[in-house]
Amino acid sequence: MDNDANAVFERVCEHARETALLAAVESTLGWDERTMLPEAAGPYRAEQVTLLSGMIHDRQTDPQLGQWLEELSEGPLVADPSSDAGTTIRRLKRRYDKRVKLPKRLVEELTRTAALSEHAWQKARKRGDFPTMQPWLEKIFQLKREEADALGYEQRRYDALLDDYEPEARTSHVAETLSGLREQLVPLVEAIQKCGRKPDTSILTRKYPVALQEQLGRMAARQIGFDFERGRLDVTAHPFCTELGPDDCRIATRYSESFFNEALFGILHEAGHGIYDQGLRTDQYGLPPGDSVSLGIHESQSRLWENLVGRSRAFWEWLYPEAQRCFPEALGDVGLDAFYYAINAVEPSLIRVEADEATYNLHILIRFELEQAVLDEELAVGDLPGAWKEKYRKYLGVEPRDDGEGVLQDIHWSAGLIGYFPTYALGNLCAAQFFAAADRALGGLSESFARGDFGPLREWLRENIHRQGQRYNAEELVERVTGEPLSHGPLMSHLRGKLEPLYGLA
Amino acid sequence: MDNDANAVFERVCEHARETALLAAVESTLGWDERTMLPEAAGPYRAEQVTLLSGMIHDRQTDPQLGQWLEELSEGPLVADPSSDAGTTIRRLKRRYDKRVKLPKRLVEELTRTAALSEHAWQKARKRGDFPTMQPWLEKIFQLKREEADALGYEQRRYDALLDDYEPEARTSHVAETLSGLREQLVPLVEAIQKCGRKPDTSILTRKYPVALQEQLGRMAARQIGFDFERGRLDVTAHPFCTELGPDDCRIATRYSESFFNEALFGILHEAGHGIYDQGLRTDQYGLPPGDSVSLGIHESQSRLWENLVGRSRAFWEWLYPEAQRCFPEALGDVGLDAFYYAINAVEPSLIRVEADEATYNLHILIRFELEQAVLDEELAVGDLPGAWKEKYRKYLGVEPRDDGEGVLQDIHWSAGLIGYFPTYALGNLCAAQFFAAADRALGGLSESFARGDFGPLREWLRENIHRQGQRYNAEELVERVTGEPLSHGPLMSHLRGKLEPLYGLA
Repeated sequence: MDNDANAVFERVCEHARETALLAAVESTLGWDERTMLPEAAGPYRAEQVTLLSGMIHDRQTDPQLGQWLEELSEGPLVADPSSDAGTTIRRLKRRYDKRVKLPKRLVEELTRTAALSEHAWQKARKRGDFPTMQPWLEKIFQLKREEADALGYEQRRYDALLDDYEPEARTSHVAETLSGLREQLVPLVEAIQKCGRKPDTSILTRKYPVALQEQLGRMAARQIGFDFERGRLDVTAHPFCTELGPDDCRIATRYSESFFNEALFGILHEAGHGIYDQGLRTDQYGLPPGDSVSLGIHESQSRLWENLVGRSRAFWEWLYPEAQRCFPEALGDVGLDAFYYAINAVEPSLIRVEADEATYNLHILIRFELEQAVLDEELAVGDLPGAWKEKYRKYLGVEPRDDGEGVLQDIHWSAGLIGYFPTYALGNLCAAQFFAAADRALGGLSESFARGDFGPLREWLRENIHRQGQRYNAEELVERVTGEPLSHGPLMSHLRGKLEPLYGLA
Repeated sequence: MDNDANAVFERVCEHARETALLAAVESTLGWDERTMLPEAAGPYRAEQVTLLSGMIHDRQTDPQLGQWLEELSEGPLVADPSSDAGTTIRRLKRRYDKRVKLPKRLVEELTRTAALSEHAWQKARKRGDFPTMQPWLEKIFQLKREEADALGYEQRRYDALLDDYEPEARTSHVAETLSGLREQLVPLVEAIQKCGRKPDTSILTRKYPVALQEQLGRMAARQIGFDFERGRLDVTAHPFCTELGPDDCRIATRYSESFFNEALFGILHEAGHGIYDQGLRTDQYGLPPGDSVSLGIHESQSRLWENLVGRSRAFWEWLYPEAQRCFPEALGDVGLDAFYYAINAVEPSLIRVEADEATYNLHILIRFELEQAVLDEELAVGDLPGAWKEKYRKYLGVEPRDDGEGVLQDIHWSAGLIGYFPTYALGNLCAAQFFAAADRALGGLSESFARGDFGPLREWLRENIHRQGQRYNAEELVERVTGEPLSHGPLMSHLRGKLEPLYGLA
């Protein structure tokens, strides 16, 4: 009986590994599309990923696989649900039960549409051209509605989509968590705006030659632990990180010669994602124990390195002399304190990926509300630009000049990623909570950062988070690692602890 | 009956197009491997291409496809064998009949081995490390023997492999053609070496900043007709051109700061391949009427642009002022005549891809002879380095200092490409014969090159060669386009016409 189960389990693992192999091929095509693909090659590439997504869907919904998983779910291997075998069987069963609800035609159509639409977006964003994107977005939202309805949901249609990125999460719970955060955040941002103090952020918009930005970014990414023998850094329109295999993690960013923050913090952010991927168990690649938990947990790793580490004073005690060597004209006359203050400026702004730590979550809230409204057909796609502007006025007091810096700034909706945005805010909350726990456990993190030593923190994350794979879901993991359920407490403490002294509050 | 045949034909085309879609995915992985893949990611990539090669093999040997092709081969659509339908059916039938002879295990094993071995070669070449490569090469030659034996052959084992690159060609005929060429070539090279005149080639090994080489190369490639909206240029260890879709042709080259020829002529060469690929009928992509004829014909296009055009005086009348602007320190004091003489220097040398037009074919002959000997087990892989040195001494009077500039210089054997080399020499012959025909037909080509106008030649090639697809085999195509069978006459006329005045001969 046990031997039987083991043999079936082996077959399931082999099946899943081969599916992962195909999925890695699809990811490679996606990476190429975002970094390398020639202008005219979009349509054929869309056909390629469509074919692959259909093949992957066939494998994921293979009735034989379903039967094996059914059998194993009642067998001895799930006795310990957080063992490798138990984790594998539970997670694969859940994925199987979900995927079989989707017709292949819909999966292929979504893949094709997203690939073409993403390609169109790359051009439309530059020109701030919403009318070109409108039919694409309409089609995508329509297909995503079909997807949600096929998957089914108890409370909200949005739940069905959110689950892809944040398994087992509920829209209502996320909304509650975010509104709790907002209640604390808005008074802090208001106090900062009224306090009458302001850093000189103009030093960040001086001239920063791109080649040197890349050099500094690579150095910083390497130092915090991104392994370039197992990964790459490239240029793209919308920064991202993707895993193409157990030893192939690729990050991409964009550069602006007249803005320091964009590339450097973008690289730290993506390298944070990369360090998570590179910290997963390679012997379990393609299986749940070797896979990341959720996008919220993934984002916690990127935001942790970008913000908790990368915007700390200790980090810049280490890196600032090198930054001054790279950019003597821009930073030669700027002291560390002034620089540190500038990179921590709180200022409502237009672009999410460049937003400060405090206002960032308001950008997320806007998207989270808008995409729910469109999905539920309470808001027409054609009305998105107007609704976007209104919400930016209301929540942040700013208004985009065009749709390129407005509703078209993010790739997500064009790429079919609906339900993805809230994971960014969840990631912020988790990042602060994990960091506080690490600091309690390890002590002296600031001192090690100031020496350029990020090993202790990285190893703690690796042990406590990366190498856990999908053993626990996001909620369970946070509670196990930090000793308490996810809350906005640690993030607010972190923000207050940093910003109140800088702005002379309290 | 006709309607039936048309319906079956449609199914065959759809089948072939989907196979091509998968093959394009595999090509994308191959391109990535040669230009982008992180150091540690080789083994997993090898698994990916292995999986795909197996899937492609399954499709190519699908018994249903075989039955359809059998049916169509006796039907009305092949009445005109060079019609689109006739071409498609004939070529696909030939491919099917060949592929079914190969066991899937062997196809997968060859793919996996070649991918891993190619990755190992990239490191081994730099270090001139033959011992690391020896077991890889032994395994590859052994697998290629198995492949040849499975395919079967009438005269030589080598025939079975040559056919992959030069369909319907015979080793004996190629050997005869090349030895005819050698008989004419050797006296010419000897006369040049004895004549006492020599260009100053040191001007080509001055300092040429890489970024400017790339800029000049891109400009030249664009001007001769490589379309960057439908393609890319990247950096690699061994220059190549690959087609990843109807609108996605990628070329790659390598740069040396201290040698002008390597990148510039490399780019012209690969752009020549690219112009062929980009000139194929996109409406027939994935089908024989939209596919290239053979590697010899492919090479004729690259060598034509590299040598017949790119090493002509008229071409440099156009480009030399720009080259002087890019490299004022290296070329500011060099006149056009001296430069033209230097880039046409005939000098036995070690590296094939940098060899001059005259001695190049002797490099090919060496490889052609050695790979036959190893395939037939007349020479052990372990004895290749020694045999290589001996032949270089004998045929060219030079000897490599290490295996990096010797037997390991080319990627081919490490990548499983046995039987490929002679197509380079066939390409040289075809290039000269095609060019002579174009010059007869169009007249005034030199004058148009001097103005930077390459349109007339490119259109002639497109019409007469590219858009013919696989309608004719290489031999037939040459005869149709030039009015006579392939011979060494045009190449020798071209070489004499150029070199005798430069070296003051005759």
